[in-house]
Amino acid sequence: MAGSMARWFASGTLSVMTLVPAARPFSASVLRKRLVSAAAEAERRGLDALLITPSPDFAYLLGYRPPALERLTCLVVPASAVPRLVVPRLEAPLARHQLDELASDVEVIAWDETDDPFKVVQSLLRTDASRVGVQDQMWARFALRFGAVLDPIELVAAGPTMGALRSVKTPDEVTRLRAAAAADDRAMLAITAERVSGRTEAEVSRRVLELLIEAGHDTADFAIVASGPNAASPHHEPGSRVIEPGDAIVLDIGGTLDGYWSDTTRTAFVGEPPADFVAMYEVLREAQEAACDAVQPGVAAHDVDRAARAIIEDAGYGEQFIHRTGHGIGLELHEEPYVVAGNRAPLQPGHAFSVEPGLYLEARWGARIEDILICTPDGGERLNTTDRRLYLVD
Amino acid sequence: MAGSMARWFASGTLSVMTLVPAARPFSASVLRKRLVSAAAEAERRGLDALLITPSPDFAYLLGYRPPALERLTCLVVPASAVPRLVVPRLEAPLARHQLDELASDVEVIAWDETDDPFKVVQSLLRTDASRVGVQDQMWARFALRFGAVLDPIELVAAGPTMGALRSVKTPDEVTRLRAAAAADDRAMLAITAERVSGRTEAEVSRRVLELLIEAGHDTADFAIVASGPNAASPHHEPGSRVIEPGDAIVLDIGGTLDGYWSDTTRTAFVGEPPADFVAMYEVLREAQEAACDAVQPGVAAHDVDRAARAIIEDAGYGEQFIHRTGHGIGLELHEEPYVVAGNRAPLQPGHAFSVEPGLYLEARWGARIEDILICTPDGGERLNTTDRRLYLVD
Repeated sequence: MAGSMARWFASGTLSVMTLVPAARPFSASVLRKRLVSAAAEAERRGLDALLITPSPDFAYLLGYRPPALERLTCLVVPASAVPRLVVPRLEAPLARHQLDELASDVEVIAWDETDDPFKVVQSLLRTDASRVGVQDQMWARFALRFGAVLDPIELVAAGPTMGALRSVKTPDEVTRLRAAAAADDRAMLAITAERVSGRTEAEVSRRVLELLIEAGHDTADFAIVASGPNAASPHHEPGSRVIEPGDAIVLDIGGTLDGYWSDTTRTAFVGEPPADFVAMYEVLREAQEAACDAVQPGVAAHDVDRAARAIIEDAGYGEQFIHRTGHGIGLELHEEPYVVAGNRAPLQPGHAFSVEPGLYLEARWGARIEDILICTPDGGERLNTTDRRLYLVD
Repeated sequence: MAGSMARWFASGTLSVMTLVPAARPFSASVLRKRLVSAAAEAERRGLDALLITPSPDFAYLLGYRPPALERLTCLVVPASAVPRLVVPRLEAPLARHQLDELASDVEVIAWDETDDPFKVVQSLLRTDASRVGVQDQMWARFALRFGAVLDPIELVAAGPTMGALRSVKTPDEVTRLRAAAAADDRAMLAITAERVSGRTEAEVSRRVLELLIEAGHDTADFAIVASGPNAASPHHEPGSRVIEPGDAIVLDIGGTLDGYWSDTTRTAFVGEPPADFVAMYEVLREAQEAACDAVQPGVAAHDVDRAARAIIEDAGYGEQFIHRTGHGIGLELHEEPYVVAGNRAPLQPGHAFSVEPGLYLEARWGARIEDILICTPDGGERLNTTDRRLYLVD
């Protein structure tokens, strides 16, 4: 039932290539439960229906992810009726094939080239509907059309509804995240055991992508290798800079396994680090530790951020911590819950997120430490288990 | 300046992998012209500004494409002022690096984690602004926030404005499309020269993806191989069905080269085709030819669709032609102009689009013929040049 969208790549004169593997599918019974929960959550939030276009939310509910195209494909989840999938007629056979066992639970409604699919969706809503949730990543052109066609129904973001579901991971999802994190750790141990000075950031990044696959990922998606002054840019794109002794190197690496993301960061130093860098790194390590220790069901995400920030500010590095402490992770690399100032929502058992404070001194250096955690009834469990020390490398 | 977003893939036990190559970048002078044209086109359409989030439109205007993430990145193109790029602070160094020579033309404005980026965008608009265009694929959650923050400014789709620009290809863009089409043709000739009976659709599809790369594509993105009864599904996903004598096979294949798409379809038959299939195929061939012949500057896209449909309907196959005749192509596989009933916009020199009528008889067979055309001052020029006959294969 999983999509197996093919994309192959060529690399210069090399003609090596490979197929995107289909993630291990969700069972029909899991998907049925999710559809029921989504309808219930929508009702609880005063929404008459959810309109879900192709996206991670769509994949979460239906088990496959069609490409987002200009012809409207839209899952309609009414608060209290059967879900329906509105698709262009020429996509209908494929949709029924992908739905597989779920086809008896989700009615497929095909629209023709000369139909107005937005009116088809309208006809599926209750005549007294007043508020409808639209999928967060729905194309604006679709959302604007829905706004006009469904007027005076109010459109609101479906994100909080879907986030409430998706942010709480089931044991199966935790197993997938755990496997992805373990693969990520293997790749991190491998790259920090290699000699990196004399190689460019781009070369080391490419090597990390190889190691991510060797470690078991289905896809290797990012390998930030930010060295020396570049380490001061949190989302640096690895380039032609040659790594040399005296460089701090931020390694932020990850990919997907069975549909779920990995994401871990460690910091390395080429040669002997100066005392002021070591002092800064120790503050960072303590801050990351304190934030992880702060994780408990009922604690606000805000307070986990605060735990890291307080230590950093007290040590006088407050200006150098320029981003939030973390982000949720699952079918998307960044999703709810966000560990950021102002997010007063309480953590719940099953929440999965990163804790990744970083310190950046422009034009000089940077450092970051990142683990993925699961909130359990007893506190935070770190899925990444490699040492959080500064890795001294050649 | 082109983005080099990395994504690597693992395939079962194989560990072959490769990097997405950066497309040949656009020069700063080309991008400058596009930014000026976008502002002028917005003004002509009564828009005070365009809000462009990461997307093909963004890549068209700025020469690179950051990933679409939950932190707002938004290019603000006022109808009459300098463009500004609003980015999260931690993306600012990368944005300046990517803008390269264009950095003097586009002011980068960084927002902090605790800022409201939508209010930052608001502060860049004229206080008397009344209508603003939002990028077609902007996430709905962003569009809804803009709707609330910019109220009472009316939000409309920026698609028609950007489509007016992007649909008319420059000579450089035509050169890129021509190279992509030539590579696509080489792959088509190669696969139709192979024995396919006894192989599964999935195997042949995989082989086509290889051939697309060997023929020079940077990425091989789709290879529909729809055989026998599956050929009746226009967007069939190649599966485990073994191709056998007596099968019609629809081959719809393409990828990208230097950022621009290829897309061509030919139909093959295993062994000797029955007379009724040959008769149907002849009607299809005539219809596709007539539609191509109908292409002229000033002719409505609608009438190109009509030219194909009239021949098919006259021959009694009207019910079997269940999709539009074609779609524009460029930085996206599907873009303006759409060759569909109801699109009365006149074709212009530089328009690039597919002409791809198809006939489908459920549970039995299907056929489709597709070329990419450029509208020139003298009529339609087909970029795909392989024979449009029915390919008889083993």
